[in-house]
Amino acid sequence: MNTVPGVSIQKTEDNELRAKIQAKLDDLTKPPGSLGRLEELVMQYCLCRGDAAAVCEKMKIYTFAGDHGITEEGVSPFPSEVTMQMVMNMAAGGAAISVLCRNAGIDNEVVDIGVAGDLPKMDGIVDKKVAPGTANFAAGPAMTAEQCLQALEAGTELAKSGNFDLYGVGEMGIGNTSSASALFSLLLDVPAEETVGAGTGSAGELLQHKKEVIAKAVAFHREAWDGTGFDALRRLGGYEIAGMAGLMLGAAEGRIPTVVDGFISSAAALAALKIRPELEEYLIFSHASAEHFHKDFLEKLSLKPVMDLQMRLGEGTGSALAMQIIAQGMNCYHQMATFSSAGVSGSEE
Amino acid sequence: MNTVPGVSIQKTEDNELRAKIQAKLDDLTKPPGSLGRLEELVMQYCLCRGDAAAVCEKMKIYTFAGDHGITEEGVSPFPSEVTMQMVMNMAAGGAAISVLCRNAGIDNEVVDIGVAGDLPKMDGIVDKKVAPGTANFAAGPAMTAEQCLQALEAGTELAKSGNFDLYGVGEMGIGNTSSASALFSLLLDVPAEETVGAGTGSAGELLQHKKEVIAKAVAFHREAWDGTGFDALRRLGGYEIAGMAGLMLGAAEGRIPTVVDGFISSAAALAALKIRPELEEYLIFSHASAEHFHKDFLEKLSLKPVMDLQMRLGEGTGSALAMQIIAQGMNCYHQMATFSSAGVSGSEE
Repeated sequence: MNTVPGVSIQKTEDNELRAKIQAKLDDLTKPPGSLGRLEELVMQYCLCRGDAAAVCEKMKIYTFAGDHGITEEGVSPFPSEVTMQMVMNMAAGGAAISVLCRNAGIDNEVVDIGVAGDLPKMDGIVDKKVAPGTANFAAGPAMTAEQCLQALEAGTELAKSGNFDLYGVGEMGIGNTSSASALFSLLLDVPAEETVGAGTGSAGELLQHKKEVIAKAVAFHREAWDGTGFDALRRLGGYEIAGMAGLMLGAAEGRIPTVVDGFISSAAALAALKIRPELEEYLIFSHASAEHFHKDFLEKLSLKPVMDLQMRLGEGTGSALAMQIIAQGMNCYHQMATFSSAGVSGSEE
Repeated sequence: MNTVPGVSIQKTEDNELRAKIQAKLDDLTKPPGSLGRLEELVMQYCLCRGDAAAVCEKMKIYTFAGDHGITEEGVSPFPSEVTMQMVMNMAAGGAAISVLCRNAGIDNEVVDIGVAGDLPKMDGIVDKKVAPGTANFAAGPAMTAEQCLQALEAGTELAKSGNFDLYGVGEMGIGNTSSASALFSLLLDVPAEETVGAGTGSAGELLQHKKEVIAKAVAFHREAWDGTGFDALRRLGGYEIAGMAGLMLGAAEGRIPTVVDGFISSAAALAALKIRPELEEYLIFSHASAEHFHKDFLEKLSLKPVMDLQMRLGEGTGSALAMQIIAQGMNCYHQMATFSSAGVSGSEE
């Protein structure tokens, strides 16, 4: 059980389609290529959709929330209850992700995939709970294989049941920078000393303690790890991380790209890429997070984030801002006049 | 006549106000500082407005259009008529800036401040024409002192007559990368070899020719230049460049910041800063342009652009995208819940 059943991802490359999209871009009233990254994003988006006339109008960010047994080791200055409190805040529209999505016309829901506590039934919260928090990965695997698969499938099902043109992911979970750092260390073979950063606010002795806890846990799991992305995810991940990985895979199967948020979301992307390397063309990395190691991760995988706004909030906040940029690229692609339609002269060369 | 009469700009620094804005930012339901650049932009914006409760809702981009006598030297592969054709395209809503502004809720008008040709009266075009194009600065000053002052004042008046919370500038003008490069060379004392780039599409021999033309013209004007920003502007600038400089100064006098677009807009900002150095706190540089030398300019002045999307289109397209980011920062500032209102626990440290 080291894979997600039923997910098959098509290659996006298609020379004929690429030429068609490029011709449409070059006919718009602007010097060729002058919209820079926006044109690259349009190209990637349309190749993913397999359609030069693809539209990007309905956008959705799923913010996956889950708790982490690793908090028992004292790796975060915030108590686990904050996860549930922040989920309530998101559902009530008061979190940063709520505000950004509301103003950008992006649909947003929080997915309770592993919050330690009973959330009320309310609009804005999707109940996909696998368990009330993971087990402490300093003492053993964070999830059983069944639990990890259930979390992956929850994400995949959300992507497949929706009718959106573009997905974004984000997360909330006290302790999840520890989980993400551990995944980076195991999957990229980088010492915890390099992958562990401040998270929501660890500093000084607490940060040193966090590094030691993660280093020890990664060393322990490395011995037993079967080398797959799935096994890495169940040993060191979290329900929200597995849920995001599942959403990326499910969206890509339906030829919809996913916008990846920051540090934690990138750990989910890394695990998902280990499960299905062909996923890469369907991922758009929104921003370089200010969280330690994120820039190193992006460089190691030669990934070019859309922005660098020194953010380190999570929730999907980087995804939301990048989705506005992508949508504007697509607006230009579909709404700009062409040289012939606008009667604009070309180059005299 | 080396200044803009009547423009006085207040310093924005105010320790008490800064502390008030910071306290409001830190009470929002997020780790302190985790919105990164968005929080810096909120701080800058509110300091400019002199008000911790300032709102940023009504936004406007003025796209200044003007023609350039320097095109007689064969520095651009596009004919001057393209300026007028693109102004018509903007007024009809088909240009990149039209599309971006329409979708972002940003007001946009084109200002005919120096287009070589008669534009019809139509919505979306503001008539502030000083003259039908500048004189060829390879042969003498681009503008008389009276013309340059009139263009500056046209921009200042636009800012003062409006009722907007945030301004952005952009431009259209065949030949204006030549003018901007010349201004950078003169005002920063950098050889044309370094400041001149491809613009809308110069390459190979044409690019080499462009460099030689600019180098010679700058050497000629350096002899007669009186050392002021105003005299640099009238010798080497353009009507749209002076108009943008005037708008920045007029907006700052009314304590409204201006978002600067790319290469040409930055040359306008540089001239305006030479005229009034205290303008700097009121300028927000939207993006690092892909046009040669722009990144060097930003580094020389220690300016940190909001984004780097490898764009080089002008018109105000970078301003539009950055204004969306700024507006989202302000949305978070005003619409997010606070720790106490949302019942979210703080750090246990």
